[in-house]
Amino acid sequence: MAAAAPRPVARFERDYRIRFSHCDPAGIVFFPQYLVLFNQLVEDWFTEGLGVSYAHMLGPRRIGLPIVRLECDFRAIGRMGETLTFGLDVERVGGKSLTLALDAGGGGVRRVAARQVLVFTDLDTHRAIALPEDVRAALAAA
Amino acid sequence: MAAAAPRPVARFERDYRIRFSHCDPAGIVFFPQYLVLFNQLVEDWFTEGLGVSYAHMLGPRRIGLPIVRLECDFRAIGRMGETLTFGLDVERVGGKSLTLALDAGGGGVRRVAARQVLVFTDLDTHRAIALPEDVRAALAAA
Amino acid sequence: MAAAAPRPVARFERDYRIRFSHCDPAGIVFFPQYLVLFNQLVEDWFTEGLGVSYAHMLGPRRIGLPIVRLECDFRAIGRMGETLTFGLDVERVGGKSLTLALDAGGGGVRRVAARQVLVFTDLDTHRAIALPEDVRAALAAA
Amino acid sequence: MAAAAPRPVARFERDYRIRFSHCDPAGIVFFPQYLVLFNQLVEDWFTEGLGVSYAHMLGPRRIGLPIVRLECDFRAIGRMGETLTFGLDVERVGGKSLTLALDAGGGGVRRVAARQVLVFTDLDTHRAIALPEDVRAALAAA
Repeated sequence: MAAAAPRPVARFERDYRIRFSHCDPAGIVFFPQYLVLFNQLVEDWFTEGLGVSYAHMLGPRRIGLPIVRLECDFRAIGRMGETLTFGLDVERVGGKSLTLALDAGGGGVRRVAARQVLVFTDLDTHRAIALPEDVRAALAAA
Repeated sequence: MAAAAPRPVARFERDYRIRFSHCDPAGIVFFPQYLVLFNQLVEDWFTEGLGVSYAHMLGPRRIGLPIVRLECDFRAIGRMGETLTFGLDVERVGGKSLTLALDAGGGGVRRVAARQVLVFTDLDTHRAIALPEDVRAALAAA
Repeated sequence: MAAAAPRPVARFERDYRIRFSHCDPAGIVFFPQYLVLFNQLVEDWFTEGLGVSYAHMLGPRRIGLPIVRLECDFRAIGRMGETLTFGLDVERVGGKSLTLALDAGGGGVRRVAARQVLVFTDLDTHRAIALPEDVRAALAAA
Repeated sequence: MAAAAPRPVARFERDYRIRFSHCDPAGIVFFPQYLVLFNQLVEDWFTEGLGVSYAHMLGPRRIGLPIVRLECDFRAIGRMGETLTFGLDVERVGGKSLTLALDAGGGGVRRVAARQVLVFTDLDTHRAIALPEDVRAALAAA
């Protein structure tokens, strides 16, 4: 029997409110805060979407997930008090890495679109390791 | 007719998850992040508890709410991945200020307890102003 | 007489120490903090390199400089306590934008390399504006 | 022979510039950022003032220095672009803790004054430990 084609992983979304603490003297989101919020989205995706606890992975399991490549387009401003929808799609599942497409928008306007390559590492050596089996299984089942 | 005794303002609570971005190389919450989360709680209390949009107040209305006094006891550590309950009680409503008691805890353990004195200001002059009428009314009705 | 070829703008460098507050539970720089540090480098470049006060530009002059495009490669980890050299080169001076190449390294190892496109804006309308004359003159003289 | 009176530890000062990233939509320092800057001052005091590497202490030595008590008065605003002088005095050297008086000011105006109680801990158990010998010796020699 032929191997089943990998099913696409479903898009994962969460709504986050833009906080006072995210905003700069221009009254709009300070751009590194979008990256903090995308990191929060990845946490929620692992824990709630894939069923693999992000905190447990980075804590007791000592598996890191640092970023090695980031591309980001900032298309429209985000303001304090807005609730934006943050979305995540898996573009590629590699042997040791994940390529994610991330975006944030609201009110019919895309604000930010990003691509991130994340690599699994051993937190003791900071060297790349193979995708953990439970992550691979969760991605296959998603 | 005697003036009605002020009714106590109901306690306001929200659950927030401790994020990777809140934690330090010791793997526990970096203490200034508790103050960012307490600020978030004050935002949510205004907007959702009092029905006075915090973002609208600090934005178009140009009313600030800086802190002038902070006391904080850090009693037990908070770890990445925990969901803690953040609570707020109004201790005192002044002519130009609010005194709030804030705390965070989870798993039956109080982690942090704080007292904050916040002052309403005109964001153009940074001078103290009287409590906005809608805030005073919302506190009275709470 | 032929127009003079634009002289290259000199590379601008500053050393910044990696702080406890920049680091994550893995004990290494949390990547959005590199972007905060690159923003700090741009501030120092304007104020000290170009002689155009960044704080005055974003404050009283109401000229913003948001990012519209970011590309970033994270090549090696940075650790708490390290002093890294952050460098900035101007890749392109546009009519309303600057394209900057940024990097950080230390101990003979490049840690991060980034490209940023920044656009000058009117902070009241958040619309793009032409490069301020003093910025253009400073770039020409650099 | 009477015990020598403990010599007072010399005041430690550093100048830090208020950055765009420290400021909020009101254009002034977001108060948790003062606490990040005080933490930076403690780092510099250990490493440069006491000659005990803060990064080495929290990293390889696995000795933590969390805060257990914080009091802070915010007296005047700090603005983007200002360079403020941050100062530290040792109020009390305990068996397991340090009580520090911290302040920040500039232009002849005190902006913030704080008192912090910091406790030395074992980062594996998060339990309090005795002051490390090199810290005690450095304080005695200061």
